[in-house]
Amino acid sequence: MNNPQLNHRGELQHLLSIEGLPRDILLQILDIAESFCGVTEREVKKVPLLRGKSVFNLFFEPSTRTRTTFEIAAKRLSADVINLNIAASSQTKGESLLDTVANLSAMQADLFIVRHAQSGAPYLIARHVKPHEHVINAGDGRHAHPTKGLLDLYTIRHYKKEFTRLTVAVVGDILHSRVARSLIHGLTTLGAPEVRVIGPQTLIPAQVGALGVRVFHDMRAGLAGCDVVVMLRLQSERMRGALLPSAQEFNKHYGLSSEKLSLAKPDAIVMHPGPINRGVEIDSSVADGPHSVILPQVTFGIAVRMAVMSIIAGN
Amino acid sequence: MNNPQLNHRGELQHLLSIEGLPRDILLQILDIAESFCGVTEREVKKVPLLRGKSVFNLFFEPSTRTRTTFEIAAKRLSADVINLNIAASSQTKGESLLDTVANLSAMQADLFIVRHAQSGAPYLIARHVKPHEHVINAGDGRHAHPTKGLLDLYTIRHYKKEFTRLTVAVVGDILHSRVARSLIHGLTTLGAPEVRVIGPQTLIPAQVGALGVRVFHDMRAGLAGCDVVVMLRLQSERMRGALLPSAQEFNKHYGLSSEKLSLAKPDAIVMHPGPINRGVEIDSSVADGPHSVILPQVTFGIAVRMAVMSIIAGN
Amino acid sequence: MNNPQLNHRGELQHLLSIEGLPRDILLQILDIAESFCGVTEREVKKVPLLRGKSVFNLFFEPSTRTRTTFEIAAKRLSADVINLNIAASSQTKGESLLDTVANLSAMQADLFIVRHAQSGAPYLIARHVKPHEHVINAGDGRHAHPTKGLLDLYTIRHYKKEFTRLTVAVVGDILHSRVARSLIHGLTTLGAPEVRVIGPQTLIPAQVGALGVRVFHDMRAGLAGCDVVVMLRLQSERMRGALLPSAQEFNKHYGLSSEKLSLAKPDAIVMHPGPINRGVEIDSSVADGPHSVILPQVTFGIAVRMAVMSIIAGN
Repeated sequence: MNNPQLNHRGELQHLLSIEGLPRDILLQILDIAESFCGVTEREVKKVPLLRGKSVFNLFFEPSTRTRTTFEIAAKRLSADVINLNIAASSQTKGESLLDTVANLSAMQADLFIVRHAQSGAPYLIARHVKPHEHVINAGDGRHAHPTKGLLDLYTIRHYKKEFTRLTVAVVGDILHSRVARSLIHGLTTLGAPEVRVIGPQTLIPAQVGALGVRVFHDMRAGLAGCDVVVMLRLQSERMRGALLPSAQEFNKHYGLSSEKLSLAKPDAIVMHPGPINRGVEIDSSVADGPHSVILPQVTFGIAVRMAVMSIIAGN
Repeated sequence: MNNPQLNHRGELQHLLSIEGLPRDILLQILDIAESFCGVTEREVKKVPLLRGKSVFNLFFEPSTRTRTTFEIAAKRLSADVINLNIAASSQTKGESLLDTVANLSAMQADLFIVRHAQSGAPYLIARHVKPHEHVINAGDGRHAHPTKGLLDLYTIRHYKKEFTRLTVAVVGDILHSRVARSLIHGLTTLGAPEVRVIGPQTLIPAQVGALGVRVFHDMRAGLAGCDVVVMLRLQSERMRGALLPSAQEFNKHYGLSSEKLSLAKPDAIVMHPGPINRGVEIDSSVADGPHSVILPQVTFGIAVRMAVMSIIAGN
Repeated sequence: MNNPQLNHRGELQHLLSIEGLPRDILLQILDIAESFCGVTEREVKKVPLLRGKSVFNLFFEPSTRTRTTFEIAAKRLSADVINLNIAASSQTKGESLLDTVANLSAMQADLFIVRHAQSGAPYLIARHVKPHEHVINAGDGRHAHPTKGLLDLYTIRHYKKEFTRLTVAVVGDILHSRVARSLIHGLTTLGAPEVRVIGPQTLIPAQVGALGVRVFHDMRAGLAGCDVVVMLRLQSERMRGALLPSAQEFNKHYGLSSEKLSLAKPDAIVMHPGPINRGVEIDSSVADGPHSVILPQVTFGIAVRMAVMSIIAGN
């Protein structure tokens, strides 16, 4: 009832996590994203749905790629975009997160895109902004990255048409992945009957069974008969303390090669959130091969972000 | 007569300092800012007054917050905004300030927003740009920060309607504050009968009496009967060499608590240029309390900057 | 025949180098740039030729000045501009150049402005983008910087009307200059009968004679009778290993003083790509004197970049 993402009429107010979003909201986002895919292929790729709106890219940790996707999506909706790299700014002057946001809000913001190293920061902000202001979580700690999950759902629906007969495998570093969490929730909500997670014991959270997934430590067994294979990035920059032996070792057991992929269904699609580590979690023959939909994911990601922005803040 | 801020018809050409601006120019800015407050509350917060104009945010020292306010104001006027962080740029290649500006000017600039660590830098630039180009000082050393002073004047007029019966206290680090200087000049010009400065001897310039203000070292005495209390940020990053004992000590004597504020008039307003140091120069109970107009100041600041830009460079 | 810059109809597809561009393409760019010079002098300096197009400023090495000229040119054509400083981004996550570009391309890019420390990087990118995407080289290693060469050609034509009777001298650090190379190719293509390079043996590439130029080590002899003098920046930040004795020594032999300039024709023009090192390669009396067209070069540079962008990516 008291869903922080929905307003009192049950409409999307903020996008903080796929967890807790009802099925019809998920489908609304995917449907509207589909209509924007046409826009982004036109010569003039602009629609005026956010004209005169102020979108703040509020990045408390740097991520050029994610910031760029939101910036493009907002500009194609005709918004004014302000990029704020906050690490280098007021935070160093000792100002609190909420004071920073209250200040930007006083500049008549409409939409905050928030990236923060701490889980829950976008929720905190969403609780304190004014009723006409909106928050999109662009990644908070290990918690969620809902637009990435949504673009994965969009991609799966685009290629597989529906969810209720699919077997989907998510492979790799589940433990540190905010994408995995978002995606698993979405797949469950949209009725995917079998979601598998594949990875070494050290990279799969103990409580993952509660999400309704099947756990595989043997990749070949896990891939057998899959319609969709979602590879995760091995975020070596996050892993200090040797949760895994080496990149070569990881590749041998959990890297996606053409040979391992042949165990999935013949028309399986391969996804990856990027940037890819070639030869670590995915071989080039797969990343660049006929099953890969990694680059279409990026294209759909723009449309999905345009959809979310226009639903929550559109004129 | 030879006012570097006015053209030969007595109109505003550059905004460099509140000092030296005639009363009617100050009132013109405040009146036009009032008309923009309506614009910024509309769904489409844009007017075409600077369409096709090139605004350069020329920041020789970083200030994300100030840069953001000018960027938003310019974009709401439909200008093209170019952000230049010059510390990391040509200056390191040994190019002089005037050569840098001459180059940007040759790119057909219309408006330079200048932030520089050295007092007087915006004046130097204003003397060398072409007749159709304009300069706004966004903070030069300890000298001036006129748009901040103007937004303070706007805020005071908004809540108190006029200036000629007001007692205004400016509290804290007067010595390092460019805001204080700008504000005191503006208040004097607009007829405020009593302006007080309150602070320890070490943070009040010796010659401050010449500005026509009353000096108080005892905060309670200084606050008595005030209509407006302007707290200054304790810029600890500027103070090396221990001009004051400690933040706690400062707070005890010159921090604004609810108890001290009760000595001012019952309808007194409390202002602060931000970002606030909670528990140092201002207690949270005051900053977030009913007398505080700190966040409205930010909102008015956008309108004031739109007003200045449109007066000097508008189509 | 297989020119990577032209499409199968012989039209400009990418701008990678002046070398290899046919005469009529060069003239087309200069003619269209001329029409844009009028636009940039209007009150509203915008035309809608790139409305809805996404221009990515892809800078793998920082250059605020060059990035700014492209950003302004793109915004005056009404494009959406995304600035990407890639050094601080995915490259550090180990992603390859082509993967980075493939990703941005998947966001529906129209135009990449590429600056890279390695010669040939823009060619590599141009070979891999989609047919409707375009690449402009904004400086690759020591190789080429074609828009700078084009603005030089534009400037020469503006002041001297044609090329076929001109003597042009290029002076200074030819070895490290991508501007020199581009310009020499352009001058040759457009029929300049005599191009001279002047500099110490250590700063002139051994094979420069193959470009059809005359080499002078004595500056006075080289300047005699010139119509156009192009001074190059002494890029001291590039020179480690003492190719030249000292800045003072360089100035004595190869710096342009009023006295040396008097050996050129009385109506000679003096050019420099900027930023200038006053007192090193050029004296202030010359840089700011009546023969200098250094600042007009900057203005023409915007028009030339608008021309190139609109030719290759315009609606």
